Amino acid sequence: MEKQELLYEGKAKKIYATDQENILWLEYKDDATAFNGEKKSSIAGKKVLNNEISSLLFEVLHKENVPTHFVERLSNYEQLVKKVSIIPLEVVVRNVIAGSLAKRLGVEEGTKTEQPIVELYYKDDALGDPLITDEHALFLKAASWDELAYIKFLARRVNEILLPYFLERDIKLVDFKLEFGKTEDGTIILADEVSPDTCRFWDIHTNEKLDKDVFRRDLGGLTDAYEEILKRIGGKSHV
Amino acid sequence: MEKQELLYEGKAKKIYATDQENILWLEYKDDATAFNGEKKSSIAGKKVLNNEISSLLFEVLHKENVPTHFVERLSNYEQLVKKVSIIPLEVVVRNVIAGSLAKRLGVEEGTKTEQPIVELYYKDDALGDPLITDEHALFLKAASWDELAYIKFLARRVNEILLPYFLERDIKLVDFKLEFGKTEDGTIILADEVSPDTCRFWDIHTNEKLDKDVFRRDLGGLTDAYEEILKRIGGKSHV
Ligand SMILES: Nc1ncnc2c1ncn2[C@@H]1O[C@H](COP(=O)(O)OP(=O)(O)O)[C@@H](O)[C@H]1O
Ligand SMILES: Nc1ncnc2c1ncn2[C@@H]1O[C@H](COP(=O)(O)OP(=O)(O)O)[C@@H](O)[C@H]1O
Ligand SMILES: [Mg+2]
Ligand SMILES: [Mg+2]
Repeated sequence: MEKQELLYEGKAKKIYATDQENILWLEYKDDATAFNGEKKSSIAGKKVLNNEISSLLFEVLHKENVPTHFVERLSNYEQLVKKVSIIPLEVVVRNVIAGSLAKRLGVEEGTKTEQPIVELYYKDDALGDPLITDEHALFLKAASWDELAYIKFLARRVNEILLPYFLERDIKLVDFKLEFGKTEDGTIILADEVSPDTCRFWDIHTNEKLDKDVFRRDLGGLTDAYEEILKRIGGKSHV
Repeated sequence: MEKQELLYEGKAKKIYATDQENILWLEYKDDATAFNGEKKSSIAGKKVLNNEISSLLFEVLHKENVPTHFVERLSNYEQLVKKVSIIPLEVVVRNVIAGSLAKRLGVEEGTKTEQPIVELYYKDDALGDPLITDEHALFLKAASWDELAYIKFLARRVNEILLPYFLERDIKLVDFKLEFGKTEDGTIILADEVSPDTCRFWDIHTNEKLDKDVFRRDLGGLTDAYEEILKRIGGKSHV
């Protein structure tokens, strides 16, 4: 496989074409951003940790028959993925209320939900990725009714797999954000990443934050937290 | 019927007890507020116009079998209503994108929706009445699943009645906000008010705003606009 031209550079990853039409070369970056890009930093080692963790988690999901874009890990910070056209929705699943939703609803961070809550945010940096309803997503033609139903089904399925997976590793999966995309034949698959950048992980005993909130809230060393996640899911340390 | 103690004073109305357990005495106020109370004014005549318009519209809805709290108009600015426990949701129906939703979705104000969009906002001044999803409403125990379905059904029904009603009067019903409440026996009925304070009305030919946006956006005389609405729906002028 040959790495070709840069197609898109996002906040956390670069996407390159390859010599194969339907395969992209995904390169993680050390950049950390928060609050819609207002807070920025470069954190040496983050790209390696996220590439490892995301690869491992996509493999876990693949084994449980969740269709994902993941093809193979290429190097410390690179992987091959299936090319999709990204559905412009951030699909958030919450087991515990935290972050923006705690503020929105006036609920204490840490409050458990009886059922996982699935939310849609409109993926648009200029608008600040606003919360939207299903009817808004239809109005925006972000997805059809059936596609929304399937996307939410997959999001809940991912939660059913990862919640116990992390619990066995003494980690509370508080919430996470997924992105889905459509392959050329119209199939919807899980894309983007599943990493401490896109999940909230709390230590089950101490509630210590082991995710990007460490950066957002200046709680200490980000790579220490990500290393701890990698260690607990059985990955090889890179420090 | 006897007016008894003041039970609650809101931004636009005062609610008094009566000598009848299940009946409240509702008094409109001349106060105008916007942006969650940040902008305030007293506009002589508004209470009379809103009382007239809301009474007329509740009668229209009642004739079409929508269950409402309206009992009778008592005076220029007073009416009797059935007492309910208000469901803490503002139910918004939109035929045309305007106001906060235009900003949220990055869509031009005036864009038509293919289907009416029904939204829920959590009625909580301290939180700024945030947009929420059905799952949030369930989490907050604002309503049950069945209640949400019924409330949304009623909201769409109100739109089906009022949209053509206003169209015949050369008025575009852009959007409106409803509040529902539960009577003591658990029945859900339409409560609060339906007025130019809670609806967006645009002249069908000129798109002139005939609602509270005149106040929010300093577009001229508020009572002139409200008078125009009252005139077109066949009410008696009070100036
Ligand atoms: N399999 C894929 N095919 C095409 N685009 C993808 C795929 N997976 C992720 N992307 C997109 O790659 C871009 C780069 O990722 P990222 O740096 O996280 O961007 P962002 O700044 O939008 O969060 C994002 O727009 C993401 O949606
Ligand atoms: N039939 C009713 N029974 C009890 N409360 C009602 C009824 N109709 C409206 N209300 C409530 O009366 C209060 C006063 O109205 P308003 O001045 O518009 O208040 P707000 O400042 O909350 O908008 C509101 O909380 C409204 O929900
Ligand atoms: Mg991203
Ligand atoms: Mg009100």
